[in-house]
Formats: sequence, structure tokens, C-alpha cells
Amino acid sequence: MDFDAMFNAQLGALKEEGNYRIFAELERRCGAFPKARSHDADTPDEVTVWCSNDYLGMGQNDHIRQVMKDTVDQCGTGAGGTRNISGTNKYHVALERELADLHGKDSALLFTSGYVSNWAALGTLGARLPDAVILSDELNHASMIEGIRHSRAQKRIWKHNDPEDLDRQLATLPANAPKIVAFESVYSMDGDICPMKEIVEVAEKHGAMTYLDEVHAVGLYGPRGGGVSEREGLADRITLIEGTLGKAYGCMGGYITGSAAMCDFVRSFSSGFIFTTALPPAVAAAAQASVAYLKDSRAERDAQRDRVAYLRAQLDRRGIPHMDNPSHIIPVMIKDPVKCRMLADILMQDWGIYVQPINYPTVPKGTERLRFTPGPLHSYDDIDHLVEALGVLWKQCAIAHAVA
Amino acid sequence: MDFDAMFNAQLGALKEEGNYRIFAELERRCGAFPKARSHDADTPDEVTVWCSNDYLGMGQNDHIRQVMKDTVDQCGTGAGGTRNISGTNKYHVALERELADLHGKDSALLFTSGYVSNWAALGTLGARLPDAVILSDELNHASMIEGIRHSRAQKRIWKHNDPEDLDRQLATLPANAPKIVAFESVYSMDGDICPMKEIVEVAEKHGAMTYLDEVHAVGLYGPRGGGVSEREGLADRITLIEGTLGKAYGCMGGYITGSAAMCDFVRSFSSGFIFTTALPPAVAAAAQASVAYLKDSRAERDAQRDRVAYLRAQLDRRGIPHMDNPSHIIPVMIKDPVKCRMLADILMQDWGIYVQPINYPTVPKGTERLRFTPGPLHSYDDIDHLVEALGVLWKQCAIAHAVA
Ligand SMILES: Cc1ncc(COP(=O)(O)O)c(C=O)c1O
Ligand SMILES: Cc1ncc(COP(=O)(O)O)c(C=O)c1O
Repeated sequence: MDFDAMFNAQLGALKEEGNYRIFAELERRCGAFPKARSHDADTPDEVTVWCSNDYLGMGQNDHIRQVMKDTVDQCGTGAGGTRNISGTNKYHVALERELADLHGKDSALLFTSGYVSNWAALGTLGARLPDAVILSDELNHASMIEGIRHSRAQKRIWKHNDPEDLDRQLATLPANAPKIVAFESVYSMDGDICPMKEIVEVAEKHGAMTYLDEVHAVGLYGPRGGGVSEREGLADRITLIEGTLGKAYGCMGGYITGSAAMCDFVRSFSSGFIFTTALPPAVAAAAQASVAYLKDSRAERDAQRDRVAYLRAQLDRRGIPHMDNPSHIIPVMIKDPVKCRMLADILMQDWGIYVQPINYPTVPKGTERLRFTPGPLHSYDDIDHLVEALGVLWKQCAIAHAVA
Repeated sequence: MDFDAMFNAQLGALKEEGNYRIFAELERRCGAFPKARSHDADTPDEVTVWCSNDYLGMGQNDHIRQVMKDTVDQCGTGAGGTRNISGTNKYHVALERELADLHGKDSALLFTSGYVSNWAALGTLGARLPDAVILSDELNHASMIEGIRHSRAQKRIWKHNDPEDLDRQLATLPANAPKIVAFESVYSMDGDICPMKEIVEVAEKHGAMTYLDEVHAVGLYGPRGGGVSEREGLADRITLIEGTLGKAYGCMGGYITGSAAMCDFVRSFSSGFIFTTALPPAVAAAAQASVAYLKDSRAERDAQRDRVAYLRAQLDRRGIPHMDNPSHIIPVMIKDPVKCRMLADILMQDWGIYVQPINYPTVPKGTERLRFTPGPLHSYDDIDHLVEALGVLWKQCAIAHAVA
């Protein structure tokens, strides 16, 4: 049987649609971020990264780096086992404590990534709570969707950020079925923020538990970086808060926080938690240092907010349409995968601006976009240069300013 | 609805069975491995780790550590994005090349863990090859089982390490259905090794593709550490080889290798690959250094083999029954979860020997065991001390020597 022919046929279809992905090969350089060296042909040697999820540049923070290196020297490069079988290090335990404190919860449980935390936690809750029904916002992240699918629990999709639709759907379910309302705070591709208070109130009214993904909010919102739930004073009314250590915290890993019983339950029954090597102690230690750092320091968040506002203002001045939203994410809609890649290629080759074209399956077909994430380390000059480039392209490419 | 009560009820059942897990909190110490500091009460300060999957002690290797630290200084603590969106660093690309070379394949694809690589690759292949049937060895690892389940492909379980049963089952399937034979080389809990040649021949006869998990073999078997498939000269006949960077290589991460089309296919369609932050460049660089190192250096493998043989011989001399197998894994069967934990507790508290009791769901109920993994850094004295302790316990606990 010619398996390669089958693979190539499906890859060919992807290429024809314009959805085949080419990864930019970069070399991040400490001290220079958001500048990076490009290892691709046809690109300038040095480019400015405009689409990183290292939102605050914590990945190059001197203190965090030092903690990581010190822990490599102290404990080595890996954990050497699953959490149960010799892989639990004091740094995993300390990080879990730090995260529980961040969200004001009893407990936290660490996973190898945010993806795995969503997949494993929703998969376990949905599968092991008898007759559970999971009510999922229609724009939830792939990791949640896969976790729900995996659980084989009953699933209901509610309209994006629409508490009234959620209310209607909850009302149709049997009173004694365990219900889990799954949603995000900041949706990463549109940058919109959920009406958290209304969602929580609806869930409470129906006795449902709330499962909140704060992956694009932790470190960034709330006085201590506890996310939108901290900013809104709602954390204690959310049953489970999930987050990542790989974005604003600049490291890697994911977690859930909540009651001691709930974390212990997922710890004890979740395949995706149990059967995998633990995070390297050095990564856990660096992540803990980063969480602790951003509990105290607001300078990074303030500077990020400033750059976001400045980029938006400059785009407006040039008449370049961008999606309106209350977050740090600035999407510029292109709505065609081929044009989107073309624009990204020109930005990279002619202007040294790296922004990855965002296409299917990350966003629905027809909503392709460039997604900019200004951070505290982008200079005003970087921003002016970006806006200049976009302005020129907007004219050249005859993509009407009216596209919005 | 009282969710905590539901969680506690299921946790209570687990405790009653004796299957509730308590993690040992350790602090690995570079230069001292397999010694570690214990942070648990009632244990000696320093313990000897006897159940690590850092099989060769590469996690504390000076060179690998240096590479990791240098890369932290060069690139920072995290990747800052998914592979597609700013997260691909030159170290990921170089590691993928190193791994393809290790197994003599065209391509390799990196994942955040071995668990995710199995789950995502089997999930994608099974779901996207129309009418695929996955034939799975009955003792396959949880990550493969979950991937197969996730794919919703037809699944057939064949008897453990039994090519004849596989042959019979393949013969009943339609000739034109894509078939995937999934199995492991070294089974980590029993330490047995599959009859690879026979399995490959059966698969070839039926035009099936072979999916081989070499997680407990890479770095350890074959002249360059390419696993059992390298040792047996069979790598070029296996369609897909999967491995981890978290065990013998001492770091973290997982991968698949195979044809360029296959790796590109999984890269392009797999949710678990696409929607997650890439490994930190420093972890990728350290892993690459470790793979390259063990391609050349055989000293670690030779010393490991020596220690394994010595421990087996000493156990035999004391009449302590252990499972016979041709690998580096030495299971001592206890067959009861409560006794198993009790023995492990005594070893830890009275003898400073850390071996995690292995219970359900890692092994079937009734096959609880202690699992020892001697490595090049265990001294003969360490081994003598372990055998002395087991000898005393075997008498005291009236666990008949006949238990085998
Ligand atoms: C909303 C959301 N949840 C979870 C994840 C997964 O987190 P991680 O990158 O740590 O796997 C992502 C992105 O990667 C995300 O956008
Ligand atoms: C056979 C097998 N495959 C895959 C894995 C997962 O690898 P990782 O620890 O890198 O997630 C493990 C153990 O953890 C395993 O024993």
C-alpha cells in the first residue's frame, strides 16, 4: 500500500487551498528581543518579531534566565521520570504552590503544556463525572475541543460570548446532571474578552461548574497577573482556572487550579498527567520565578499597554483597518489565505518584519489575518516602521482600505 | 451541585484499593545522581534513586548541561510561540535533522513529549487515512491507546508480542484498507522486547504500515543508540519510529521519524502538534547534544549493561525472584498494591532506597511491582546495599520466596 501517495494527496489539497504552512526558522537572541536572526533564504538577517506570544519578553529576562541556568546546574537537564515515578522535584511542588496562590485557590496541578492541561483536565472531568454535560463556547481552543471530544461526555456548543444562549441551553438540561461551562477569557485570534461576570452568574444559577482558560491573560491582566478573573474580582467564583507558562511567562508548561479535591482527582485519574515525563526542574523553577516576578512588577504590563495603544493609534492614522477589541492582540483581517501569505512574505523580505500569516485551521477559512502582538520591548520606531510598511502595502496591493 | 463530594468519593475508592498515589518529593543533585535529596518527612535526607528513567544519567552530563545553559543565554527560556507562529528556532530544526539521521529516515517531527507524539501521530493517521484499521499490541502504552481511541479508527487488539495472532487478524481485514500495526520495542513495565523481525514480516506480507514506539530503547540499544530497530538492522523496514527525549537522553520532548511525506502530513494536520507552544530552544539544543553524544559514546551503555547484570546476579544469589527479560529493566513482582507501597516505604525510610511502587493504572491490578533500573552511575556498593535490604525484607515480611 502506498502510504506516501495518500499523504501527498492530502498535502497537495492543502497547498492548493493556500493553507500549507511554512515555518519561519528563527534564532531568538537574548538582549535583542523582539529582534531575531532569520535562517531562511530571501530574508534579511535580522528581523523584528511581531507575532510572538512571549508577550512581555519574559523569555529573555535576566533573572528568569539565571534561575533556569542555576537549576540546570543543581538538578540537571531533565526530570528523569513521570511525576509518580521519580520525576517530582521540589521545583514542581513550589511552582504548583505559586500558581495556586496566583489564583487564590487551594491547589494547582502542573502539566507539560497548556494544550495537555486542557485536553487532560476536560477529558478526565467529562469522562469520570457520571452523565456530565460540557457546555463549550463555540470559539474555544483546539485543546479544549479535543479534551471534550476525548471525554465522550455530552457536549453543547453555545454562541460565542453569549450568556443568554448559555442560559437557555443550561435550562434544558436535567437538574441533577453535572454541568461544566468551558470558556476562555481572552480569545487569542480575535482578541475579544468574555463577559465573565454574566457567564459566572448564569453558571451559578444552574449549579454548573466553570472551566476558564486564561492562557492569553495570565501574567497580563489583574494586579498580580492573575488574569481577567483576578482583574474582575471573580477568581473565587470560578471552579477551575487553566493557564500556560509558555506565553506571558516565557517558559513552557500548563496548569489547572481549583479545589484540593479537584486537582487531586485530575492528578489521580488523568492519563495525560500520569503517563508522561515531568517538566525539567529547570523549566519549573524558571516558570515559578517568572510568575513570582510578574506578581510584583507591573512595568512590563504598563509598557505593553502603552505600545498596544500606540500601534492602534498609528494604524488608525494611516487608515489601516484592525479589529477592535479590549486586549493586547491586534488582528488585521485579510480574509484570503494566499493574499495573507503574500503580504507576510513581502513584510519579511522587504521590511524585515516577521508576522506569521494566520490561516485555517487556526482560524476559520475566509477569516485569514495578520495578528500583531506589540510588547514592552517594541520601540516606537519599530511600530512606526511596521505602520509605514503596512501603509505602503495597503496602497500597492489594492486591498481596499474598506476591508474591515 | 457539590462537585468536591463527587471527586472525594472517587478518590476514597482509590485509597481503599491501595491505589492512591503519593509522589516522592526529591531534589536531584548534579554530580551526585543517582543520589538525591528527599524533601519528605520520615525519610533520610539523602536517598538513592532506583527507579529513574534517566537511564544513563545523561541529565547531569556536563556537556549537555553546558549546551542547555548556553542556549538559555543565547535564546532565552522559552520558544515564545507555536512552531508555526514564531516558535520555530534553529535548534528545533537541527534536532529534527539529528533524529532523522539517528533512525536513518528522511524526516523527523518534534513534539512536546513522547506522550503527545504517540497521541497526536496515531490520532492523526487513524483519523485521516480513510477506513484505516489500527492493530494494537495489547500491552501498548497509554499514550498510544489514547491516540488510537482519539482517531476513532477501527481498532484490533492483538496478543502481546504474538506475530501469529497479528497475522491472523490482518488476514481478516479488507485488502484495500490502510492498516497500521502499532507496537513497542522494549515494554517498560515487564522489560520484554518484541519479536521485531517477525512482526515486520507479517506487516509487510499484508501491506500494513508499522508504527514502533522505541521510547525505552533509544539511546540504549543499537551501536548509535538508535534503539532495538537499529540493533536488529530493521529500521529501514519500519514505517514510523517514535521516541522520547525525556528518558535515556535526559531532557524532554518526543518525536516521530519516517518519510518526508508522512512527517509533513502529521505536521500539517495534527492538532496536538499545531496548537501548542514549541519546546524551549534550550531543551531542544540539549536534547540534540545528548542524541549526538550517545551516537558516539558507548561507555554509558556498556556500564549500564554491567550494572544490570550485576544486580540480576546478586538478586539470584539471595534468592530474590525477579522477572526474566533481555532488557535493562528489573521488575520484582509483589502482586498487591498495599504490600507494594509498604515495602517501598520501608526501603525509603529505613534504607534510603527510593523505588516507587508501581500500581494500577500503570500496570494491571494484581501485578503490582517494584521496578529497578540500574544505570552506569549506580556503584557496586549501591547495588549490594539494595540487595541486602531486599534480602532482609524478604525474610521479615514473610513474602514467600516462591512468589515469582
Ligand atoms: C486558548 C489557548 N489555550 C491553550 C493553549 C495551549 O497552551 P500551550 O501553548 O501551553 O500548549 C493555547 C495556545 O497554544 C491557546 O491559545
Ligand atoms: C512506551 C512509552 N511511550 C511513550 C511514553 C511517553 O513519553 P514521554 O515521557 O516523553 O511523554 C512513555 C512514558 O512516559 C512510555 O513508557
